[in-house]
Amino acid sequence: MPAKREIIVGVDLGGTSLRAVVVDPHDQTLAEVKTPTPVAVTPDVLIRAIAHTVDEAVKVANLTRKAIGAVSIGAPGSVDMKTGMVNRAPNLGWTEVPLSKKLKALLRVPVLVGNDVHVGAIGEYTLGAGRGSEHMVGIFIGTGIGGAIITRGQLYQGSRGGAGELGHTVIVADGPLCSCGHHGCAEAVGSRTAMEREVRAAIKSGKKSVVLKIMKDRGRERMTSSVMARALRQRDPVMQHVLERAQYYLGILVANAVNVFDPECVVIGGGIADRLGETFVAPIRSVAYRYFLRARDAERVKILPGSLGDNAGALGAVVLAREWLQGRQR
Amino acid sequence: MPAKREIIVGVDLGGTSLRAVVVDPHDQTLAEVKTPTPVAVTPDVLIRAIAHTVDEAVKVANLTRKAIGAVSIGAPGSVDMKTGMVNRAPNLGWTEVPLSKKLKALLRVPVLVGNDVHVGAIGEYTLGAGRGSEHMVGIFIGTGIGGAIITRGQLYQGSRGGAGELGHTVIVADGPLCSCGHHGCAEAVGSRTAMEREVRAAIKSGKKSVVLKIMKDRGRERMTSSVMARALRQRDPVMQHVLERAQYYLGILVANAVNVFDPECVVIGGGIADRLGETFVAPIRSVAYRYFLRARDAERVKILPGSLGDNAGALGAVVLAREWLQGRQR
Repeated sequence: MPAKREIIVGVDLGGTSLRAVVVDPHDQTLAEVKTPTPVAVTPDVLIRAIAHTVDEAVKVANLTRKAIGAVSIGAPGSVDMKTGMVNRAPNLGWTEVPLSKKLKALLRVPVLVGNDVHVGAIGEYTLGAGRGSEHMVGIFIGTGIGGAIITRGQLYQGSRGGAGELGHTVIVADGPLCSCGHHGCAEAVGSRTAMEREVRAAIKSGKKSVVLKIMKDRGRERMTSSVMARALRQRDPVMQHVLERAQYYLGILVANAVNVFDPECVVIGGGIADRLGETFVAPIRSVAYRYFLRARDAERVKILPGSLGDNAGALGAVVLAREWLQGRQR
Repeated sequence: MPAKREIIVGVDLGGTSLRAVVVDPHDQTLAEVKTPTPVAVTPDVLIRAIAHTVDEAVKVANLTRKAIGAVSIGAPGSVDMKTGMVNRAPNLGWTEVPLSKKLKALLRVPVLVGNDVHVGAIGEYTLGAGRGSEHMVGIFIGTGIGGAIITRGQLYQGSRGGAGELGHTVIVADGPLCSCGHHGCAEAVGSRTAMEREVRAAIKSGKKSVVLKIMKDRGRERMTSSVMARALRQRDPVMQHVLERAQYYLGILVANAVNVFDPECVVIGGGIADRLGETFVAPIRSVAYRYFLRARDAERVKILPGSLGDNAGALGAVVLAREWLQGRQR
């Protein structure tokens, strides 16, 4: 297979934005394109938008589709990697969408599909903060909490590819209601959604906070990472307290994962970690150290913010495609 | 290697009893010997007692040491399987004891050593309740809670062999104090020790219970599984309530493990499960089903009591030794 065929387009299909990166065989990013994800459209319309974004990225890289070895997508939901079928993606309103098949028909290039959290973790493991470790746990914190376990370069998939749901492990039995319908999941106490719920409750109970004003000024309906960052810069006491509480729970979650998986490295990704970096991760790390079963783990288990930022998913998708192409060459 | 050399002695080195089974290559148990573990003795004295118990078992099987391919031991603590070194075994008061080397010097037979929970899980996976599954989680509930993850026949070890500590994952943040010094671990709310603490607290607060009387009558200082079974037969309301509460937490622990590892089977072993069987496991199962992230998992993930009883550890040690002998033959 000629080298020019190994240029890969990685796509991160997020609920808010659609991102494509064109990467050459030497890990050089030749182009990056980002656009809002069309909302309230049919799967076919969204898939045409993905094809368009891929074409745009290829054009920005001064290439044509013929130069592309594969397009590889991280999608937010449960995905069958073998068939490229998206079984369920609640954020997109998708059920049983044959993404790989449909996009391939439009682009006439092989198309791979993986779960967004899985490919994000693969990205951090291969090209980002997890580089050099054999066993890594990835925890992605945003509106939800996703997890992925990588061991000797392979995603730990379990019996049906459903492993890694750290966000839906209960850490506060009988605690707050989670989006999944259960109580006390890590996601219900440590996600951005949980933090927003706590901020709103504090304001309702009479506490003073600038968070709602920042949201209004910036035209945001939700407490995004940038809203959080701004409130923290203004030393908003409600935001500070709520964040601390979430970091405490996230520290426990990280320690649970370390006690169960015994990795060398835990990478914390997602919007808040990208935006706040060490400010977000340092308190999580110090709680986790306290909850490690083996005290010596504090010296050897690294807990790091992701280093690929918003590109973790798209770059991880590229890594996935390379492994697939290599497998095909053998 | 002649078949007669493949007779193996499996040993379970427990805090209370020492057990040896002699197993032939066709999984037939030729002899079983059980004796109380000598307490408050030096490692050398205890190791001589192990050698003696092995010899007794071999004698009961009408064999001589020459017929034995290996002795394989499950020890309660952190073990380096490569060297047969017991790094730390708090129940025995051991630190850095070269068990394999010392026992081999006495018996002149290859000696393997594994962690008791790990070998117990391997036993249930290969010969017991987990048979036929590819991915299994083992949870052993006694004075503590141990866990082991098996995936495609291999123990999931993590980066330093420390994986699987499900008993020390926090499921009730800020909950009761655990033996490990942290708060709210599964062990602190679901182990027999936790149940005894709750029974004593209920009695202290004025609730009526037959548990202490049963303990006195049977000369037990601790609330053993047999004490629990008798109190339940007498429909002791304190015992019933405390058990139910522990089963609730254990159900959450099982669901956490299923959501993270996506196994086909969870085997619940240890003294209480051996004694109470389905009475113990059924309520755990129904809580776990409620906490599964993927509702369909309730149809496909089996949650079963162990089927090897007290012999899980010794038989698992035999399985371990066979794998080792096969590896040597290759």
